This record gives sequence, structure tokens and C-alpha cells, in this order.
Amino acid sequence: MGCGSAKPTLRHSPSAQVVNFRGNQFLVDCGEGVQVGLCRSKVPFGKIGHILLSHLHGDHCLGLVGLISTLGLGQRTGEVVIHGPADTERIFRPLFDYFCPQLSMEVRFAPFDTTRSEVIYDEPTLTIRTVPLHHRVPCSGFLFEEKPRPRHLLVDRCRELEIPVAYYKGITLGLDWTDPESGKVVPNELLTSPGSPSKKYAYCSDTLYAESIVPLIEGADLLYHEATYTHADVVKARQRGHSTALQAAQIAKMAHVGQLVLGHYSAQFLSAEMEQPLLDEARTVFPNTLLANERMVIDV
Amino acid sequence: MGCGSAKPTLRHSPSAQVVNFRGNQFLVDCGEGVQVGLCRSKVPFGKIGHILLSHLHGDHCLGLVGLISTLGLGQRTGEVVIHGPADTERIFRPLFDYFCPQLSMEVRFAPFDTTRSEVIYDEPTLTIRTVPLHHRVPCSGFLFEEKPRPRHLLVDRCRELEIPVAYYKGITLGLDWTDPESGKVVPNELLTSPGSPSKKYAYCSDTLYAESIVPLIEGADLLYHEATYTHADVVKARQRGHSTALQAAQIAKMAHVGQLVLGHYSAQFLSAEMEQPLLDEARTVFPNTLLANERMVIDV
Repeated sequence: MGCGSAKPTLRHSPSAQVVNFRGNQFLVDCGEGVQVGLCRSKVPFGKIGHILLSHLHGDHCLGLVGLISTLGLGQRTGEVVIHGPADTERIFRPLFDYFCPQLSMEVRFAPFDTTRSEVIYDEPTLTIRTVPLHHRVPCSGFLFEEKPRPRHLLVDRCRELEIPVAYYKGITLGLDWTDPESGKVVPNELLTSPGSPSKKYAYCSDTLYAESIVPLIEGADLLYHEATYTHADVVKARQRGHSTALQAAQIAKMAHVGQLVLGHYSAQFLSAEMEQPLLDEARTVFPNTLLANERMVIDV
Repeated sequence: MGCGSAKPTLRHSPSAQVVNFRGNQFLVDCGEGVQVGLCRSKVPFGKIGHILLSHLHGDHCLGLVGLISTLGLGQRTGEVVIHGPADTERIFRPLFDYFCPQLSMEVRFAPFDTTRSEVIYDEPTLTIRTVPLHHRVPCSGFLFEEKPRPRHLLVDRCRELEIPVAYYKGITLGLDWTDPESGKVVPNELLTSPGSPSKKYAYCSDTLYAESIVPLIEGADLLYHEATYTHADVVKARQRGHSTALQAAQIAKMAHVGQLVLGHYSAQFLSAEMEQPLLDEARTVFPNTLLANERMVIDV
């Protein structure tokens, strides 16, 4: 919903994305105007349970007070968890207290340490880990990792062996089958085939070119990596803690990701034509690259 | 640039207007997304010298940190003055210190007392006064009042009397003419005709229906008055500290303003058709009424 950088333009909003995992919405960064982006993308506000802030630069978090205020105006109950660097609660709690003192739900802050990779969310089907980035302030990306999927049941084989249906669920989760009469054990791999590969999405914005992130995002199906500048501005990128499109592609290639999406464009790119060189230079290194836009939806 | 209310919609942005007075830009309220509005309306950011916040509800001020941050990224020097209720500096100074510690210009806070009408800006051609409003938190509107314009010189009369051209400027400012030879005094009203009427613009958002504002905005050429609801919702309006379109029109009529512009629409109005009743009911009382929109420009 936002793939611009700090300076506003009419083409791009500041950073904000929604990761929808089986109906749960995770908001990743929360730039000013995020509510308009949510409306435009028809994301139901009420389904956002977790908000992940990569860092506390305004273009990644200044939409937070308005969003929390709107969530708390509605019928929203339960809890919203805000994951962010250490300062997040110190900065935002007083603003929530002032601008939205009567929220209909709880807001909990879950700080993370940006100097190391941490698991910040863990449930039976999904893990979210931080990916330490290298920017001008403490900053982490996020890796969404689906847990291994259940194995596929070989139904014909199970029928042949007259295994009762009640055992099928356990077998897809990896159990062997022991015939209660003969005591004979049929190993799981004869009853199932491997489950569909589980998916990984990595979000890396904002960062210097940093090979240290490669092992953390290895094999991700999709990588969003900032590409504030083209490689012609590599010196400026380094000075400001940003990457070039070419560097993003190098990271994607080294990490063997499936697809790369570029974003966090400098405001100097005033048109689609001016953004095209970002894509062109990235594709010289990593062909399966796309340019993000505000209405992009990618099914991983 | 914004005439919606707190809940975001795809039709309207939260409150923000620019008053352009002879090239000086005054930003009136500063809702989230104000920078996009400024870009869309082609208002040069660098010309904004004064920001006036009517009150500290999020939909009137949450665009401030991003805007100040952008102003301070640019070549902007000198001073930006933020006029607002007492809490403004306490809330925003820490945010500027955190999110934009290295601004290229000074930011000065100029608090006003929302319980009385105060002059908050005064220069040779323009005065800005606050207009105490009645809302759920301390809140003031603003009255922009052009100072009396110079009288028109009756050039033919001056020539007849052989008045040297060097005296013309003083005469337009109201001086009499004394003939240095005869000592005879020609009163100013024989040498000039009255200047063009000076203009007044009144901004009143958000407020209960309050007749106390009528004498303060008497005779304004243009009045922006909030009209969050139609009169069918007058009870809800009163409970939430807002006005109906009919009430806005009553204020306009009692204050003998030239034109009324309605705004601050509730998010319940999802289309132009749904907003039409606001206009219709206001016009039953005050025919010269318009509905604000995000790209509206009015030449007072």
C-alpha cells in the first residue's frame, strides 16, 4: 500500500504492506496515509491483529496514531500487538493516551532487539522472525515463514491396508501405522508423500547493502528489498543507509529467493519511465524482479 | 485539501486548508496526508510560514510531524510558527526532536487561549484572530481579516491642485494636503474615494452550534463551517460536539456572511449523492452555500 520513501509524491505513499496469512492480517510498516491504502485495497481494518514496525523513521510509522485511533473507534475488541524497536512504546504510548484515550481494544507493545534475529511471532502454522538490517537507526526486516505443511495421504495405500479413517489425520502429521492385530509397523513414508513446500516471505526495508542478511532469508519465495536509488547513486545510497536496485538484486541472487520486489523509491523518480532503470539494472543480475506499486497484490 | 472527519474514506482527507494571502501561505489544520494534498494542489511547501491548528484531535494535526520533517529536509530556512492550543508544544516538540532532529529551519510554537478571541498574527495588511469554538477539547476557529485597503487617489483632482506626485502615496494612506504657499488645507476626502472593501475569511471547525461566534465572524466574505451531519442527526451532533448543515447555515445567516462552505463530513456519506442533503438543507436557510471538496479553490 506504500512503496515510496520519506519525501511525499503523488505517485507513492510511504511504506506499508499487509501480509495476509490464512485470513490473519499482519501490517508491515505503517506510513502516513496507511488508512487510505487499507480502504483502497479493501483490507478489513478489524482483522489487523499485529503491526510490525521495521524502524522509527516517520515514513514507516507516522500512520500509526491515526490507525489505532480508527481501530479503537470501531467495534474492535481484544488486542492489537505492535512489534517494533525498543523506543516504540516510549514514543507512541503517550500519543495513544492523548489522541485516543478511550480505545475499544488493548494495545500491547512487543519490543524486539534489532541487533539479532528474533522470533517475534510463533503459532502452529507460522513463524515471524526479525532480520537485522543496517540503517541510520535501529532497524529490522521481517521473515514470514510458514511451518512445514502436513504430508499428503496416499489414500489408496491406506485403504489397501484397511487403516481406519480415524487414523488418517495422525498419519498426515507424520505418524507411522501399527497394525493392532499383527503388530506390524508401516512407516509413515510408505503412507504419505511430502506436503507442499511451505512458503517464506522476507521484507527488507530500509538497509545498506548487507550480505549478513543472506543466510537469514535464504530460499525465500518472495523478497521485498528496498531500492531507493539506481547504482549510479551508490555513494549517496551508502551515505544515507540505503541500497541500490543492483544491490537488492545481488542479495536476491545470493539468497536464492524465488522472486524480488523492489520498492522504497526515492522521490526523484517522478514517473514510471524514470523508475524503469531500477528494474532494468536489477534484472541484469536477478531476472525475476518486479517493481512494487501501491495496489500490488502478490500471491506467494 | 481535506474536508472529511476522523474516520478515513476514499472520498475525503482529514482537515487541511491553505489560505494564500498575497503570496503568504497559511496552513489551517494539518490532518494526516496533508503533504499529498499540498502536492496535488501545487502549493509550494517552502512558502508555508504559519501553521494554525484549531485543536488537537488527530484528524486536525496528525500530518504535522511528516510535514515539518519534509520542510526541514529541504532548503527551508528561517522560522515556521505553529499556532495551537496550550498542549501543542508538549505533544509535538518531542516528536520533532525524535523524528526530525536536524531541521534546516526553526520551529516556534505560539500557543493561544481557546477561551477567548485573540489576535495571533498581525502585520500591516492582515490580522488573524482566533474564534473560540465549542468542541469536546479546547478548540478555536480562525478569522483572517485584511486590514483596510488604501483609499483610491482622485488623480485628476490632485493634478488640478498641482499636488506633487511625491505626496500621492501619503494621500492614499489618508493624509490631507496643505498647500505650502497658501497654507490652505484640502481634506483627504476631497482627494480620494474609499478603498476597496477589505476581505474576511472565517474558519470554524469543529464546533457545536454556538451563536457566540456570530459577532466574531460578522460580515465575513466567506465562512467555512463544519457540517458533520444533516439535521436528522442533530442529537448525535450535539453529543459529539459537532454541527449540522442546517445549523451551519443558521450561523452564516445570522452573521451576514457572503458565502458559506460546508465540510468536515461524517464518513457515513459515501458518495456525492449522499452528501447532497447537507447542501440542500443548508440552502433552505442560506442559499449561497457550497460543499467543500479536496481540490476546491475559492478566490475571496
